Amino acid sequence: MSTPLPPFPKGPEPATQPVLLELTSGPEGPQLRADAARNRARLLEAATRLVEERGVANVTMEAVAAAASVGKGTVFRRFGDRTGLLMALLDHTERQFQAAFFQGPPPLGPGASPADRLHAFGCGALRQTCDRLDLYIAAEPDASRRFNSAPYRVRFTHVAMLLREAVPAADGELLAQTLMGYLEPALILHLTRQRGMTVERLESGWHDLVERSTCPVPFRA
Amino acid sequence: MSTPLPPFPKGPEPATQPVLLELTSGPEGPQLRADAARNRARLLEAATRLVEERGVANVTMEAVAAAASVGKGTVFRRFGDRTGLLMALLDHTERQFQAAFFQGPPPLGPGASPADRLHAFGCGALRQTCDRLDLYIAAEPDASRRFNSAPYRVRFTHVAMLLREAVPAADGELLAQTLMGYLEPALILHLTRQRGMTVERLESGWHDLVERSTCPVPFRA
Repeated sequence: MSTPLPPFPKGPEPATQPVLLELTSGPEGPQLRADAARNRARLLEAATRLVEERGVANVTMEAVAAAASVGKGTVFRRFGDRTGLLMALLDHTERQFQAAFFQGPPPLGPGASPADRLHAFGCGALRQTCDRLDLYIAAEPDASRRFNSAPYRVRFTHVAMLLREAVPAADGELLAQTLMGYLEPALILHLTRQRGMTVERLESGWHDLVERSTCPVPFRA
Repeated sequence: MSTPLPPFPKGPEPATQPVLLELTSGPEGPQLRADAARNRARLLEAATRLVEERGVANVTMEAVAAAASVGKGTVFRRFGDRTGLLMALLDHTERQFQAAFFQGPPPLGPGASPADRLHAFGCGALRQTCDRLDLYIAAEPDASRRFNSAPYRVRFTHVAMLLREAVPAADGELLAQTLMGYLEPALILHLTRQRGMTVERLESGWHDLVERSTCPVPFRA
């Protein structure tokens, strides 16, 4: 029944460096690796431009190859398939966000209280997800892998660490999953596009949720 | 950007009858409808038995036809495809749960305080989902329809109504989505099978979440 997984870190944040999705690896020499990295960066820039101009639904491997002036085979070799390409785009976006919450200025980065960092984290995540909502939805893993994807686990581990500092007596892992659930792209899609809510209302809801979650002694109404 | 949707009820619960997924309809006369209903019930019983014996992954339209001693065409005519069959099985399960929280005995049904009903609702939903986890996962709608499926909306409306009674000052819709997120089958799959948590731990987390959510005046840690 159980699939073994590496344990989630229990103690303080183990490293200040972002834990990154690394999709390119292999026994390449330094020159080849440098060429491959340049190639990859160019393809990702072209794909990002295409997403902005035409929307995720219209981004194909062929269109990315044409926009970057390379052969289609190069795009397939680099990303495997369209999902691989979308995940790499998400990785690119997530790296910037990870850098901001791991080592950027407070209150999102270190130097503010755990509660203040949580408040800032959710607002940053909401804005980031709203800005690239179609991309997050298109790259959503299926139910059995949704909570194990690298970007999810990096965010989750950060939120769980802040909650353990803010409310040591609570079940930090479950509370962190609850907070992460509020930031799920599928829910943000529903609330903004199907229910017509503003990002400001979602931010207010996040602040309320963080205050409830970091309340040291919950009591019955 | 916005897809128009019927509004969620804002006031008190509009009806005591469960709002049910109705998958069978058509211009059939009383006798034909009675035959069709019997046929449908027999197929669902056979499918339920197969799910229990072989697991959802091994339930095919052919296997259900064989187990119910009918032709394969009958199963296809009745449910359209395998997803339709799985949704009908979920509908069957959800009806029982809906009946319990709409009109069953307290604290799940009417007669207890809104907070006590919320406590009972989550425990009921967790047990129900754990008992048929593979079925809930197999029948999960994609991201753009996940929050609009009939069973989700029935549960959501109920939770939102109880929260509005318990904490009128809060943003009941957003808080209800947060509580519903804790009960998502994909999360329950992750926590129980991939993280090895017991249902008892999930229930404790639910009680903590309900206490935090119904806390009248949240304050900063």
